[in-house]
Order: sequence, then structure tokens, then C-alpha cells
Amino acid sequence: MNILVINGPNLGLLGKREPLVYGTKSLDDISKKLVDIAKAINDKIKITTEEIKLSFFQSDIEGEIVKKIGEAWTKDSIDGILINPGAYTHTSIAIHDAIQASNLPTVEVHLSHIYSRENFRHTSIISSVCVGQICGFGENSYFLGLQGLLNFCKNT
Amino acid sequence: MNILVINGPNLGLLGKREPLVYGTKSLDDISKKLVDIAKAINDKIKITTEEIKLSFFQSDIEGEIVKKIGEAWTKDSIDGILINPGAYTHTSIAIHDAIQASNLPTVEVHLSHIYSRENFRHTSIISSVCVGQICGFGENSYFLGLQGLLNFCKNT
Amino acid sequence: MNILVINGPNLGLLGKREPLVYGTKSLDDISKKLVDIAKAINDKIKITTEEIKLSFFQSDIEGEIVKKIGEAWTKDSIDGILINPGAYTHTSIAIHDAIQASNLPTVEVHLSHIYSRENFRHTSIISSVCVGQICGFGENSYFLGLQGLLNFCKNT
Amino acid sequence: MNILVINGPNLGLLGKREPLVYGTKSLDDISKKLVDIAKAINDKIKITTEEIKLSFFQSDIEGEIVKKIGEAWTKDSIDGILINPGAYTHTSIAIHDAIQASNLPTVEVHLSHIYSRENFRHTSIISSVCVGQICGFGENSYFLGLQGLLNFCKNT
Amino acid sequence: MNILVINGPNLGLLGKREPLVYGTKSLDDISKKLVDIAKAINDKIKITTEEIKLSFFQSDIEGEIVKKIGEAWTKDSIDGILINPGAYTHTSIAIHDAIQASNLPTVEVHLSHIYSRENFRHTSIISSVCVGQICGFGENSYFLGLQGLLNFCKNT
Amino acid sequence: MNILVINGPNLGLLGKREPLVYGTKSLDDISKKLVDIAKAINDKIKITTEEIKLSFFQSDIEGEIVKKIGEAWTKDSIDGILINPGAYTHTSIAIHDAIQASNLPTVEVHLSHIYSRENFRHTSIISSVCVGQICGFGENSYFLGLQGLLNFCKNT
Amino acid sequence: MNILVINGPNLGLLGKREPLVYGTKSLDDISKKLVDIAKAINDKIKITTEEIKLSFFQSDIEGEIVKKIGEAWTKDSIDGILINPGAYTHTSIAIHDAIQASNLPTVEVHLSHIYSRENFRHTSIISSVCVGQICGFGENSYFLGLQGLLNFCKNT
Amino acid sequence: MNILVINGPNLGLLGKREPLVYGTKSLDDISKKLVDIAKAINDKIKITTEEIKLSFFQSDIEGEIVKKIGEAWTKDSIDGILINPGAYTHTSIAIHDAIQASNLPTVEVHLSHIYSRENFRHTSIISSVCVGQICGFGENSYFLGLQGLLNFCKNT
Amino acid sequence: MNILVINGPNLGLLGKREPLVYGTKSLDDISKKLVDIAKAINDKIKITTEEIKLSFFQSDIEGEIVKKIGEAWTKDSIDGILINPGAYTHTSIAIHDAIQASNLPTVEVHLSHIYSRENFRHTSIISSVCVGQICGFGENSYFLGLQGLLNFCKNT
Amino acid sequence: MNILVINGPNLGLLGKREPLVYGTKSLDDISKKLVDIAKAINDKIKITTEEIKLSFFQSDIEGEIVKKIGEAWTKDSIDGILINPGAYTHTSIAIHDAIQASNLPTVEVHLSHIYSRENFRHTSIISSVCVGQICGFGENSYFLGLQGLLNFCKNT
Amino acid sequence: MNILVINGPNLGLLGKREPLVYGTKSLDDISKKLVDIAKAINDKIKITTEEIKLSFFQSDIEGEIVKKIGEAWTKDSIDGILINPGAYTHTSIAIHDAIQASNLPTVEVHLSHIYSRENFRHTSIISSVCVGQICGFGENSYFLGLQGLLNFCKNT
Amino acid sequence: MNILVINGPNLGLLGKREPLVYGTKSLDDISKKLVDIAKAINDKIKITTEEIKLSFFQSDIEGEIVKKIGEAWTKDSIDGILINPGAYTHTSIAIHDAIQASNLPTVEVHLSHIYSRENFRHTSIISSVCVGQICGFGENSYFLGLQGLLNFCKNT
Repeated sequence: MNILVINGPNLGLLGKREPLVYGTKSLDDISKKLVDIAKAINDKIKITTEEIKLSFFQSDIEGEIVKKIGEAWTKDSIDGILINPGAYTHTSIAIHDAIQASNLPTVEVHLSHIYSRENFRHTSIISSVCVGQICGFGENSYFLGLQGLLNFCKNT
Repeated sequence: MNILVINGPNLGLLGKREPLVYGTKSLDDISKKLVDIAKAINDKIKITTEEIKLSFFQSDIEGEIVKKIGEAWTKDSIDGILINPGAYTHTSIAIHDAIQASNLPTVEVHLSHIYSRENFRHTSIISSVCVGQICGFGENSYFLGLQGLLNFCKNT
Repeated sequence: MNILVINGPNLGLLGKREPLVYGTKSLDDISKKLVDIAKAINDKIKITTEEIKLSFFQSDIEGEIVKKIGEAWTKDSIDGILINPGAYTHTSIAIHDAIQASNLPTVEVHLSHIYSRENFRHTSIISSVCVGQICGFGENSYFLGLQGLLNFCKNT
Repeated sequence: MNILVINGPNLGLLGKREPLVYGTKSLDDISKKLVDIAKAINDKIKITTEEIKLSFFQSDIEGEIVKKIGEAWTKDSIDGILINPGAYTHTSIAIHDAIQASNLPTVEVHLSHIYSRENFRHTSIISSVCVGQICGFGENSYFLGLQGLLNFCKNT
Repeated sequence: MNILVINGPNLGLLGKREPLVYGTKSLDDISKKLVDIAKAINDKIKITTEEIKLSFFQSDIEGEIVKKIGEAWTKDSIDGILINPGAYTHTSIAIHDAIQASNLPTVEVHLSHIYSRENFRHTSIISSVCVGQICGFGENSYFLGLQGLLNFCKNT
Repeated sequence: MNILVINGPNLGLLGKREPLVYGTKSLDDISKKLVDIAKAINDKIKITTEEIKLSFFQSDIEGEIVKKIGEAWTKDSIDGILINPGAYTHTSIAIHDAIQASNLPTVEVHLSHIYSRENFRHTSIISSVCVGQICGFGENSYFLGLQGLLNFCKNT
Repeated sequence: MNILVINGPNLGLLGKREPLVYGTKSLDDISKKLVDIAKAINDKIKITTEEIKLSFFQSDIEGEIVKKIGEAWTKDSIDGILINPGAYTHTSIAIHDAIQASNLPTVEVHLSHIYSRENFRHTSIISSVCVGQICGFGENSYFLGLQGLLNFCKNT
Repeated sequence: MNILVINGPNLGLLGKREPLVYGTKSLDDISKKLVDIAKAINDKIKITTEEIKLSFFQSDIEGEIVKKIGEAWTKDSIDGILINPGAYTHTSIAIHDAIQASNLPTVEVHLSHIYSRENFRHTSIISSVCVGQICGFGENSYFLGLQGLLNFCKNT
Repeated sequence: MNILVINGPNLGLLGKREPLVYGTKSLDDISKKLVDIAKAINDKIKITTEEIKLSFFQSDIEGEIVKKIGEAWTKDSIDGILINPGAYTHTSIAIHDAIQASNLPTVEVHLSHIYSRENFRHTSIISSVCVGQICGFGENSYFLGLQGLLNFCKNT
Repeated sequence: MNILVINGPNLGLLGKREPLVYGTKSLDDISKKLVDIAKAINDKIKITTEEIKLSFFQSDIEGEIVKKIGEAWTKDSIDGILINPGAYTHTSIAIHDAIQASNLPTVEVHLSHIYSRENFRHTSIISSVCVGQICGFGENSYFLGLQGLLNFCKNT
Repeated sequence: MNILVINGPNLGLLGKREPLVYGTKSLDDISKKLVDIAKAINDKIKITTEEIKLSFFQSDIEGEIVKKIGEAWTKDSIDGILINPGAYTHTSIAIHDAIQASNLPTVEVHLSHIYSRENFRHTSIISSVCVGQICGFGENSYFLGLQGLLNFCKNT
Repeated sequence: MNILVINGPNLGLLGKREPLVYGTKSLDDISKKLVDIAKAINDKIKITTEEIKLSFFQSDIEGEIVKKIGEAWTKDSIDGILINPGAYTHTSIAIHDAIQASNLPTVEVHLSHIYSRENFRHTSIISSVCVGQICGFGENSYFLGLQGLLNFCKNT
């Protein structure tokens, strides 16, 4: 079972960028912890008999994220996507279409609580093609999101 | 440590109401499972040395929810709130004000993915005073929400 | 065959409240006449071999109406609803959800012509989950509504 | 007592046009039934000592409907109008003005429930100059509408 | 002469709730002071030869406020209303309709300056059926409001 | 010199229709007076050495007005248009396009003051292709409009 | 009979200012011609047995126009107003209120066709308190406006 | 195989009307060329063994277009529609409904590029019930549209 | 202690202007009564050991009000402002900025209930920089406003 | 004669992506067929004496499309562009500017009928700088678009 | 060469008014420095052989600014304008029209960054008739603006 | 002291692209002149004892600009940014976030006057996180912007 974890623009700088808002963990730290959590979940609820494999992708470029999602379902045998689209959450119809085309179960996560920040962050163009959305829990958003995604995959 | 779980209008009928959208579990089933999960989490991450106690409240009446939240911080020594405000999510400034007044960490959960349904469900008046929001994972939204809330309580 | 007749806020004062707008009949007068009409219709078009029974419910509280509709389909063997939601017509997603959950044929009636009054009365949140809508005929709105509801029940 | 029944664009094809939405009865079938109903009502509540006469008019052309309404009050001794303005419901200020000028009691009916269809059908420009509105009951909308109109005429 | 003082949701917690915004006085403190002020005003401008009586009502439930206003003019011989509708100010057409039905002179007061807070607090659905509105003076809003109401009653 | 005077829907009933709003003169009365005025103006300012001829056209049908304007410049040697488009003022892009295509100087007139009536009368789709607009002066709007049109024709 | 002619901001520069849009006549030229026209009209339709007197006022300052209108009905025995409010047409509620307070018949004129220029010129805040409006005829707008005003004064 | 070609208001004047925008060809010229093209296409891709017959209809009257479409599927054995609804593109729900009722494959064409002209031309009410839309290519829009329609008919 | 009382456009005509809306008292009458009230309040609650001095300013000109407020805090040792900005309430960012710059406690009053009149009176640009707002009580609005202002000054 | 065919995000996956919406042909299939069509057209209408050459470019990255268009007119001697901007149709001002800067005749095509899908697909930012637009004909949109483009190039 | 420097409402108080936002320099300080800068620029780029003369004008009154601009091009031989319209930036069509009428190159400057403050400061009605706009640099906005204006004057 | 100069999409073609709008200088020409100006400023106001170094970056790809800004503050010891974001000005929340994350003083410049062009250019998403904005001065916008940025750096 393969899960693709996608991070959008400005997220490569996690840990250094406005730590009060986004926390002090780097994207690497979070990725490592995600691998452990995936293992722990599978040990517990036996989603698959093999290991759950996580691959990671970060890009500041909208089109590269689109492309990556395209490859996910045509080449890379990915079974689900965990995505933090960053600022593209609010503007990218292209990522919306890519997820829709992929037909892969996708969970959208955000570090901060996008609905209690500026107005332009209150709309997610992506969410209508996702299984669910989690926001506001800092790095925990990722961990809860992964859990939600794996549970969804198990039941469908 | 005391957590208050609040469910809004029409949620008393869970399991019978449009099962394709809201699942086949009753609110009771979910509540029981929540108690187990609270215990499991505390066993693991030791938030408190005593048990985590969950109390449950369901009402179809907006004002009763407001009142309950008021009592939570003036009388009932509640430490955090897990709330699914149902249809009042989109219309109740009174519940918004009650949460704000309480100053209690609150997590908002939804069974369905409110952002991929009718337009009038795309706005949550409540979310700006909550720690975080989780939606779209069915009963799992509650379980992930509790986890997020307890983690938040531990770290602050 | 059981029909539930629901009246929303301020309708308990019918007959006394702005008689020029809402007429001089009390809610009781209308209810009695509705019972006679139900009988007359059934005598004529034989919807059921037994009597058509009407039960009446008035509340100023949104959540009590929600609750009543919930009980209608889980406990009270109601076959159809005739509702005048009063001011909640324009604001209550909770009643909308309750009707949708009930899956009962519902007819929405209004004494006054809501579309020729203030702007905030031009939108009915309820109507999208109802069979039909009748407004502007004073107490006759109820009588025509009952007729429309019974005809609908007969044909489906 | 003379009632004019007006049907707007595309209603000449009733029975053939999208039967699932608009039913299988032709406009002629409905018209005949309306004549019977008018007689039955008058037998019962004695609105007039003579017969209630119905005249029928269908046109796809907005301006012809405007003209017909103009003649109704200047030449044809019409006492009330039952109108299904079809698509012109949502766009015709000219028909609105014609009804207003006529000062005749007018009831607006729709076969389908216009408030639960596309957004552009949610506004009736006509309704603010009508006695009342009935929609969603298929051919019954006409029958209930006639009844409402005759009752109104009797009481005023 | 009887004045009904109504307080809406979350106002039962005055004194404890965000004291920086809403002050440190409890609702009881304010009520007591209102009684004194009523007496003082009457001593001075002789509105009535008897005492001015104040009755108090607080509820978190929209429908109970609606009901109370209904009873005010049908049963309780109330001559005027002083209301702080709290969060229902911005959403309740039902309270608007209740005041309109009552035909009682009503003054709307707010502790905080609702027009300098969040956008959703800038609209009062209630104000169009009130004599006047006072906001921003803390507990003084009540005292000024009572004075305005009594003056109005005297002159009309 | 030929001037075409066009009147839109419901204007054939002038004199009978809401006399308080639209006056007691029939369209014929106004037309006759227009002929006299045209003569008087020409006698005075000598726009042409021959008579100014007025032709009149009234229709309730939008498309017939469109057609008439089309014939005006292709067949009927018309030199200017005086138009009261009635209700089509606010909805007809087709008449807008017809005037634009004709390239004839056109003056728009209204009996009532459209900008002090209902909101839907505040927009004229026609005016952007007209020389000028006159409204609110009752039948005088026509007389002033003709004068404005003839002056314009003289100067260009 | 006294008529006050008011001109708003930038109109003192007529003749020099964008002559292609506003013409080559100065405000003085227009004023003189207005005096002649007033005389001619009175000679013809005998509105008054004495002369019609015109007084002129131009100001770039909104508040001075407000003040002038206030004096018109309290001191200066003015019987009607002809106003070109210039840019204040679109923004001045104060002038709107001044005209409303004066209760004097007022005609609004514009040199250019405000409804075929920039969007911000499409709304006249003033027009709802005026008898009528004339725009697009250059200096003729003034002459037609005076005629319309005098006719109105004669008939009321 | 029968194709109905419909042209809306002002299109009867093609060739004479604003040639820079709409070209110098008359509607007749275009119609003749369309007949040739239909033949050429069928010779090439053999949509039918018989000739493709084109019938032409132009009207300035919205309702006549509605009626024609109604006859197309009830009487005239039409297999597809090529329509340039002119100005009614932006306002006619009645034509929208007629096409929807007909269930005939319909292609919408425009001579000019409606999306690069005035704002009110940017919305086509018709397009949501059409197979496709072509605009901006002058008379070629018709030729490409016919080709697209015939291809569509062949494949379905 | 010095209080500046500012009145905006058209308020110089109080008493004569629409007495049904604005009352029969002149601005002078109100000013005199305000002086008495100030004295009475100080006698009672001893805000200052010296007299409370009121100065009055009325202008129809927006900029003069701006200037006056500027002088209030730079030259005139004013301690608080009571303002009825009239029509500028709804349009003047300049007065908003002047109050903000002054940092003086300011109370906004209106004779009529601005929230139950025309839509364009429902927005106060000024209120966000004021202590509080009082409207709808006729001349009493001023008296209550002064009281509110003095109380505020005492407590801060 | 050189034509550049540009395809935007997600179009590289044509044939695999939602075949019911976008068809079963790959982008390569369509490209090959376009080459044949270009040849056929030129054989028929002799646009150029040499071959018409097509070059193809697909990218998921908005900026690469911008760059490609920039090179088209500065380096690659391109004479026209056929573009399907995919999701960037609705969001990219940068591609709009690139086409405008290039001054090359550009035709916009879409496989699906963008005006009968989700609301966010109803606006094309690109179309105002294109010759024409074709949508809804599946792969035929490309073929018709090329034809339209070549015709346009021939005539200008 | 003569440059007119205009400052709008509340700017006369610079240095005293909210120094954190607007700086501690008075308008006089800035004016003096502007004179020096004008000299320095001319010494360097030789715009004119004579001195560049600056005249200064500050007013809180919209109409006086309008008048000043009118005099600038009719009497005062001004060659360019540097304007900080203060709060009138967002509301004054009259100043917009005055600048447009003057045809003088005008540069708009703001001390604060108007686009990062309240929403009502995000629109400049003036900017569409100016050469350029500079904001956010405190007093430097004036200095950069003068430089930009002089450069513009030199090149045109 | 290091300044990063960023240019967005389509700006690589400066000099060739619509020279009437954007001027005839290439981006290289401007860059060279910027280097000279930086030197001149430092010679004059001694911001730093060493040279001011400018580095240049142009990209058509939104994400690459985001990335460059990210590197600016994590790797490249940049002290300030001068940015012309081209078309991304109006759409890119990602660049907004990147600037905000960087915490570097940033000045936004535009060659043309974005507020006097198409509506979609009137909003800058970037400006709320910039020090200031300069637009409309052609290449001078860059020179004034650099000056403004260096002054800002010196003072903070």
C-alpha cells in the first residue's frame, strides 16, 4: 500500500517560517514521524499484510504538483494521497482537476486553521474532490489526516 | 480531565437518518467508542494521571447548547469541548459567542464533508473560535477530533 | 393515515396578531376546519379506508420543531406533514435537514404572500425539500395545502 | 363570473414535454378538468348564481400575453386570472405591469416546484402583483389555484 | 406601568464573560440598578401616578423569547420592552416578528458597540421594529435605554 | 423629415391604466399633440423646408419593435426615433441592438420617473445607445423628447 | 414666480472643460439663454401674470449647495429648482436630503448622457426626490428641463 | 436527415448591419453556403444515405422561436438544430426550455466573439442545453457549427 | 470640562424640516436644553468640580466639520464630542479620520432611527471610531447621548 | 505557415482521464489527426504554397506556457496558436497577457462544454484576447478550431 | 515650470496626528524639503532653464480642492500636480472630474500604504486620471512622487 | 547590502512587448541602470560602507518566484526585495505568503498604472505585505522603487 504525501508552496521552509504560526518542526521531521505513524497504524488495524509505504513530494510549482498527481495514478501505483496544497488551496483549479482525474482517495490537511485567518483563505477549491479535510492542529493535522486516509482506504 | 461532547440538531437520529450519508452507527455507538478511545490515548500519551472523563450532550435546541457551554466553564469543570453543531454550524452566532466566552479549547467535527455539499453548508460560523476542524470521515471525524483535542490540551 | 400539522413561531397568536395581515381566525379555528376538510376529502376520493387523522403541533422553538419531525418518522407513524414554519422558513437549516431526514411528503404553507413582502421573506430554505408550496390565501393556504398533500399521498 | 386561464411558453406541448417533470396530461386534459372543477366549486359554495365561465389562452409570445391581459379588463369582462407564465415568470416585467394595470385578482401556478430547481427559476417577477402562488403539485397546482382564486373572489 | 426587560443568549453569564468587553457587573446587578433608575425617573417626570414595575426575563433560547413577547401583550399587561437580544440580534426574524406583532414600544440595547466589531454584528434584524437603539455604553446602555423608553411612553 | 414614435408594452392602454401614475390622456391624444408640436417647432426653427412627418407604432411584442426599427432604416426613410420602450426598457438587449444597428438618433422617454420607483426599473439597457433620456414629466416627457430629438437632428 | 438654477462642481469652467463632451458654451451663455426661454414660455402659456425670475448659483462645495437649498425655502421665496449637481449627483446624500426637506419641485439635468459613460455615473442619488430627469442633450438639457419644471409648476 | 437553422433578432439585416462587426454577407448568402457545405460533408463522411436537408427560420420574436422549436420535434421531423439566438442568447429562459424540451442536439453559434464584447453579452442562458458553442469566426461560425453538429449526430 | 456638540448638513433647519420625522424643536431649543442637562448631570454625579461647558457647531460643509474636529484637539481643549453627522454619517471617511486622529471620546446621535429608513442610511462610516451610538429618540437622542458621553468621560 | 498547438494542465493524460467526459483518444492521437487535417485544408483552400507545419506543446506549468508563447513570436516564427488552456482558462492572467503581447491570432478550444459544467468553469480569462472559441465537441473542438484559425489567417 | 502640491483633509495636522502611522514631520517640514528636492532635480536633469516653482495648497473641503484645480489650468499656469487627497481619495468623483478636466499631469501620493489598511481605503477614485501612484513610504512618498512627476513632464 | 530584483511573467520580453504600454527598454537596460542608481544613492546617503549589490531574477513560473524568495532569506543573505510580479500580482497568494514568510522589506513596482487599466488589474494580492507600491512611471517605477526601498532600509 502506497501513500503519496504532497506539500505545496512555502512548505519546504517549515520550521524556519513564522514558527508561531507554523511550528518549529521541519518538513523532514514531520515526514519521518509520518512514516512511524503509518507503521503503527498498520500494526494495529492491519490494513495490509505488507508495509505501508510513504513517498514524499514538495514543490513550490503548481504544475509540478499537477504532474505528480498525474503520475501517481498512471505510473507510481499510489493508493491514496495526503496533501497540504499551501496557498494553492485557494486558487488552483488545476490541482482540483488532477485529483478528480486520479480518482484516488485524497485527504486535505492544513497546519493552521484556515477558516480563522484572512478572508482569502476561507475557500478551498480542492476540498470538493477530497474525502475529508483537517485543519488547525499544527503537525498533528498530518498525523490525523494520515489516520483518516488509512481508515478510509481500509473500509472501501 | 473532563471533555464535553456536544451534538446538535438531528444528530439524535444517527444510524436511522440517511445512512448513506451519515452511516449506520447510532450516536450511542459512537459515544461508547469515544470513551474507549479516550482511555487508549491517555494510556499511551499520559495526558493526565487520572482517567479522561467524557460527558455527552445532544440537543435539537440552539439555546440549550448555548446554555450547556455556559455551564461547562462556570460549573462543570470541563477542560475541552468536542462539538458537532449540525445545522447550527452555518447559522448560530449564539453558539459562536458561547464558545468564545468559555475560552475552552474546542474542536469542531462533521460526519459528512460540508465543503462538498450544498452551498449553504460551506460556511462555518463556529470555526473561527475553534482550535481546529475535521470533516468528511464519518464517525472517524469524532475519533480524530478527540485525538486532536487531547493532543492540544496536553501541549498547552 | 396520519398527517402532522406543524405551526412555527408567533402562530400561536393567530387571530390576535395583525389581523389585517393574518386574518381573524385563531389557530384552533383553522385546525378544526382542517379536520373537517380531511374527512370531506377522504369521503370523496377514498385515500384510505380508515379515517385520516390529523395531529397538531405548535412551537416557537426551532429545535422543538426539529425534534417533533424526528419523532414523526421514528415513533409516531406519520404519513405526511403540513407545515407553516413562520419566521424559521427563512433561516432554519435545521428544519430543512429534519424534513430531508424524515423522507415524509411535506407541504409548506404561508398565510401571507411571502414573495410580496420584505426582502428577507423572499427566500425559503425549507422549500427545496418539500413537495410543494402554497402562499397568500390566508387560512385557505392550509386547506389547499392539505388537499395537495393528500392528493400527493394518494398518487405515490 | 369569468375566469381567464393563461399559459405561457412551451406549455402547449404538455404531455409530450419531459413527462417525468411535467406529467402526461395535455393542456387540453387539464383545461377540461378545470371546467368541471369550477362547476363543482360553484355548486358547493355558490359564488355566483350563474355558471362560472372559463376561457383559455396559451401563447409562446410574451407580448401576446401582455395584450390578452390588457383586453381582459378593457373588453372581455374577466373577473379573475389563473396564470402559469412558464419561463416568463422569471424575466417578464411586461407581464408584471400588465397584471398590475388590470387590477384583477390573479393566482400564479406552476406544475413543478420552481424553488427546488435551477437557481434562475427561484425568482418570480410576477408574484408581487398576485394574490397567491401555488407550485409543485403537477396538474393539481391548477386545480388548487382555481379554488384559491374563486374563494378569494367570493370574499372580496 | 409595566416594563419587560429581556436578555438574550450568553447574557446570563455577565460579569464572568470576557469582562474586558462586557464589564464586571452581573445581570442581577444591572437589573437592580434598573429598578432604582425607573423609580428615579418616575419621581422626576411623573410618567404614571403608580410605580413603574420592571419584570426581567433571560433566556438562551430564541423561541422562549418569542413566546415571552407573545405573552407580554396577550396576558401580562406589559407597556414597553427593553431588549438586549444578544447574538439573536443578527439572525432572528422570529423575534422581529414577535415585536412587530406585539405593537409594544421596544428599545434595543447592546453593551458593546456592535458596529465596531466583527462584520456579522453590523446588521440588526430587530432594529426596524424598535423605537430606537443604543449601543456601546456598557451597562449604561441599559440605563439610557430605559430612560429613552419611558420618555417615549410618556409622549405617545 | 420623418420621425418614428415607438411605444412599448401596456402603453396602448394609456388613459385607462393607473391614471394616478400614468395620467388620463390616451396614447392617441398624446400622438395628436405630438404632431402639432412637431409642426410648431419646425415653424420656429426651420429644421426642414418640408413638413416634419410623424409615424406611430405601438406593440406589446418585443420582437415586433425590433423588426420595426430594422425597417425604419432599411425601408422607411426614418430620420430619428422617439421611443418609450415600457417594461422592455429594463430587459431588452434585442431592442438595444436594433437601435445600435439602425444608427438613427434615438431619444428615450418615460411617463413616470423610473429612478424613483421599484429597483428593477432603475436600469435602462436601452439608454447607452440613445442620444438622451427624459423621464418623470408625464405626457410632457414625449413633448420635451421630440423637441430634444429635433434639435439634435438639426445640429448634426 | 422664482426659479433657482443650481450648478455643481466643475461646471463653472463650462466652455473651457473638455469641449467635445460638454460643449463650447460658458455657464453664463447658458444662463442668459435660460432667462430668455423662461420669458418665452410664460408669454406663451401664462404660468404667472408677472415675470418668471431666475436666480443662479454655482458652487464646487457640496455643503454650500445644501445651504443654498435650505435658504431657498426658508428665506428666498423660491418656487422651483433646476439643478445640475455635477459629480455630487452620484455621491451626495446631503443634497438629496436638502431637496427632500425643501419640498420644492426640482428637475435634475445633465449635459452628457450619464447612463452611457463610466459605471460610477450610472447612479443618481438625487433623482428619487426630483420631479424628473433630463440628460444627454448638451445645453438643451437645461432648456428642456426648465420647460418641464414650469409645466409641472403650472399643473400643481 | 433534417437540420433546422434558426436565427434570432436583428439577424435578418445581416450584411447591412454594422458590417465591420458582422460582415458583409446577407443571411441568404450564408444560408446558401450552408446548404453546399451540408452536401459536401455528407458526400465525405456519409452521415446518411439520403440528402441532408436544411430548413431556415429567422424571427425577431422570442416566442416564435420557442414555437418553431416546439414544432421541430412534434411535427417537422427535425434531427438537429443550429441556432444563433442573437440578443436572446443572454435573456431567454423560454428558448432554453424549448431546446431542453425538444431533446434535439443543438449547436449555438455567434458571428462575433461574445466574450470579448460588453459584459451583458458574457452570459449565455442557452449554452447549458446545447452540445457545443462556437463564436468569433464571422460566417465561419455557422459553417464550423454545422460540421460540429453533423459529426455529433453521426456519433450518437 | 469642555464638550463640543457638532451638527451636520440640513440640521440648521430643524423644527421647520419635515417636522413629522425630525420634530418641531429648533437646533437652538435643543442646544439650550443640552446646557441645562449638562449642568444637572454634573450636579448629580460630580464629574468635575467646575462647570461642564458646551460649545456648538453646525455646518453643511463636510470639510468644515473635519477642520473643527482638528481644532478641537489641537487648540480648543475639548474633552469629548457629541456629533450628529447628518447625511455625512453614511459617506464621510474624512470625518471618520478626523475623529480617529483626535482620539477624543465621541458619541454619535441621530434623531430618526436610521436603521429603519432607506437602505443607504443603514451604514455609519463614523460609528467604528465612536464610543457609542444612539438613534431613534428624537431630541432625546441628544440628551441620552450627552449623558452617555459624560459617564464615559468620568470612568476613563 | 507554422501553427503552435498548446495544451494545458492534465491534458497529457487524455484518453485515460475520465473517458466519459474527455473521450478515449490520447493527446497523441489528436495531434496526428490535426496534422492530417491541416494538410487537407491547405490542399483545398491553398492558404500557403508550402506545407502548414504544426508544432505541439503540452505543459502542466502555467509559466512554461507563458514562456512558450513568448518564444513563439520572438524566436519560432509561429503564425497562429491553437490553445486548450485546461484549468488555467479560468485563472491565468499571465497567459492572457502572453497572448496579448504575442499579437498572434489565437483560437481557444475545449473538449467539454465549459458553460454547462461547474460555475467556476463559466469564465474564460483568455477568451477576450482570442479570435474565437469552440467548446463541447470533444476532439472535434480541436479540428474545428484549426479550421477556424486557418480560415482567419487566410483572410487577414 | 510650476508644480502645485495639494493636500486633502486632516493633512494640516501632520506631525501631531497618529505619529506612528503618519510620521512626526509637519506638512511645513515636508513642503520645505520638497522645494529643495525640486531644485536638486532640476540642477541634475535640467528640466527647465529657470527654477522649478512649487506652490502649496491644503484644504479640508472637497470643493475647495476642486476649485483650486480648476484655477490651476485656467489662471495659475501650473504645469503639473502632486496630490495627496487624503480621505477624499476614496469618495470624490468631483476631484476626479477636476483632474480630468485640467488635463495636467498629476501624481497621487499617500503617506501610508492604503492597500494594507481598512477595506474602504483600497479603492482610489482618483487614480484612473493620474500618471502614477506612490504609497507607503511616509514623507518619502512625496519626494519620490515629485521626482516621478518631473521626469514625466520632461519626457512629454 | 544585497537587494534582489524580481521580475514576473512576460517581463523577459520588455522592449519588444507592446512598446506603447511598456516602453522600449529591455529588462537588461533597466537592470543596468538600476545598478548605477544603487551606486549613486549609496554615494549620496551612505546606507552602507560597502557597495550595494543587486541580483536579478526573472521567471514566468509562479513557483520559481516563490522558491527564489524562500532562498533569499534562508541562503542568499538578501536585505530587501524589489519586485514587479507582473500578472501574478493579481492572483498569487503563494507569492504573498513567500514575502510574508521572508520578513524582508519589499517594494512592489509596476511599469503601467494598474489602477487605470482593466478591472482585473485593480487588485494586488501582494501589496498588503509590502512596504510600499509604485506604479505608472514606466521604467522610472523601478528607479523610484529602489530609492524608496533603500531609504526604508536605512531608517529601520
